[in-house]
Amino acid sequence: MSVGTVYGVGLGPGDPELMSVRADRLVRSARHVAFFRKAGRSGRSRKIVDGMLPADAVEFPMEYPVTTEIPLDDPAYNEALSSFYEEVSSHLATLAGRGEDVVVLCEGDPFFYGSFMHLYTRLKPRVPVQVVPAITGMSAAWTASGQPITWGDDVLSVLTGTMAEDALVPLMEAADALVVMKVGRNLPKVRRALERAGKLDRAWLVECASMAEERAVPLTEAGDRTVPYFSIVMVHGQGRRP
Amino acid sequence: MSVGTVYGVGLGPGDPELMSVRADRLVRSARHVAFFRKAGRSGRSRKIVDGMLPADAVEFPMEYPVTTEIPLDDPAYNEALSSFYEEVSSHLATLAGRGEDVVVLCEGDPFFYGSFMHLYTRLKPRVPVQVVPAITGMSAAWTASGQPITWGDDVLSVLTGTMAEDALVPLMEAADALVVMKVGRNLPKVRRALERAGKLDRAWLVECASMAEERAVPLTEAGDRTVPYFSIVMVHGQGRRP
Ligand SMILES: C[S@@+](CC[C@H](N)C(=O)[O-])C[C@H]1O[C@@H](n2cnc3c(N)ncnc32)[C@H](O)[C@@H]1O
Ligand SMILES: C[S@@+](CC[C@H](N)C(=O)[O-])C[C@H]1O[C@@H](n2cnc3c(N)ncnc32)[C@H](O)[C@@H]1O
Repeated sequence: MSVGTVYGVGLGPGDPELMSVRADRLVRSARHVAFFRKAGRSGRSRKIVDGMLPADAVEFPMEYPVTTEIPLDDPAYNEALSSFYEEVSSHLATLAGRGEDVVVLCEGDPFFYGSFMHLYTRLKPRVPVQVVPAITGMSAAWTASGQPITWGDDVLSVLTGTMAEDALVPLMEAADALVVMKVGRNLPKVRRALERAGKLDRAWLVECASMAEERAVPLTEAGDRTVPYFSIVMVHGQGRRP
Repeated sequence: MSVGTVYGVGLGPGDPELMSVRADRLVRSARHVAFFRKAGRSGRSRKIVDGMLPADAVEFPMEYPVTTEIPLDDPAYNEALSSFYEEVSSHLATLAGRGEDVVVLCEGDPFFYGSFMHLYTRLKPRVPVQVVPAITGMSAAWTASGQPITWGDDVLSVLTGTMAEDALVPLMEAADALVVMKVGRNLPKVRRALERAGKLDRAWLVECASMAEERAVPLTEAGDRTVPYFSIVMVHGQGRRP
């Protein structure tokens, strides 16, 4: 009996038509499908493939341990996450050991700030793993904004809204084009940092790029609403353009 | 008679299976197909769709004016390029005006350092234009390297090998993760800049990611060969990983 493969399949930004031909094929023929979700939720990546899975596919929801009560810098947080990743990796390795292929659903591109990376490093030494790259959320976001992100020699910096405000400012100043990931509840901080860097007036907010709820507006027109998890802030480059 | 649409269709990094489902459909049903190429070449994006176009598709190769004899900072270079973009844009707008849809083939993602951007800005005020985002060359490149590019709060900087060495060094020092696009003949300069930034030993060279000729090696093992146009240098981030 031959060993199975764990596929980290990037699903792209949300629109099922933006899945790659390979991802589409792997999802539609999957026997085992694993995906992350918060307890009590249906799972963001699982939602993207609604209606695409074979009727007899075995689903393995990987539920994050409840960690919202533990502060992020508490070592207990890291330990809880780490043993959770160990546990689900072991399950996937066992399936592969039995000769089963497993499709792990990933938002966007698996190797770009993805949760699958934590399984990948644990599975790689044990079973065959294949990664299918995908369209990132940021590609869909700049497409939604209707403006190219980088021209000529523009430098693009990708930052995260989880960074400290004082760390964000100089990086925002230095780059020609900017993408801020993981915006969500960090939007007020990101807005302040952009203001200090003198780039607020050129910034865009894109929510749920490529999804039914897609919305792209200049950040100064966004108001004070809370924005969804799938939100990106960007500043377009202005480089050389013949 | 209704007006047609110009589609800027991202084809992804090269493997036809990594085209999106939408791009695959648009290419396979195209009536008019436009693509850039150098005079006397078949065209890199055109090669990706070999065997996929309908037999009766009308092809419109957009041949770059011969500019290799003009130095890049000569205003004549910009003028030659600019009138070339004007000319081909007018042709595409005319086709759309006649009610024809046109598929413009784009390497990688159209809005990420893409040539289509120069047509987009010219066509947008005249005819309907739609952009289909795609998997970037860099996503395929980090997948080929077998290592995730960004973890946790890693900052990713995307630079171009066409930048001056002295401009590259501080940016290479500041970022956690690095991607250098447009490497090609600039590889010796990129290598020197990485050395000065203290990151040469962690750098990877990826050629022709996702194509038959794919090759991913640590840069220090790459030797002194000349590398193809489709080459990326990267340094992977080392951020938080529970
Ligand atoms: C944990 S990261 C995963 C990124 C993903 N692997 C990718 O390639 O885009 C999650 C962040 O990606 C961004 N994101 C992903 N998809 C998005 C979309 N369709 N629209 C807006 N933001 C998106 C949001 O900033 C979100 O907080
Ligand atoms: C003009 S830029 C276009 C980038 C493209 N729009 C994208 O999204 O990747 C061309 C550069 O992209 C990089 N590139 C694109 N596809 C690649 C691939 N499959 N493998 C390696 N490098 C690639 C190379 O650095 C090349 O010089």
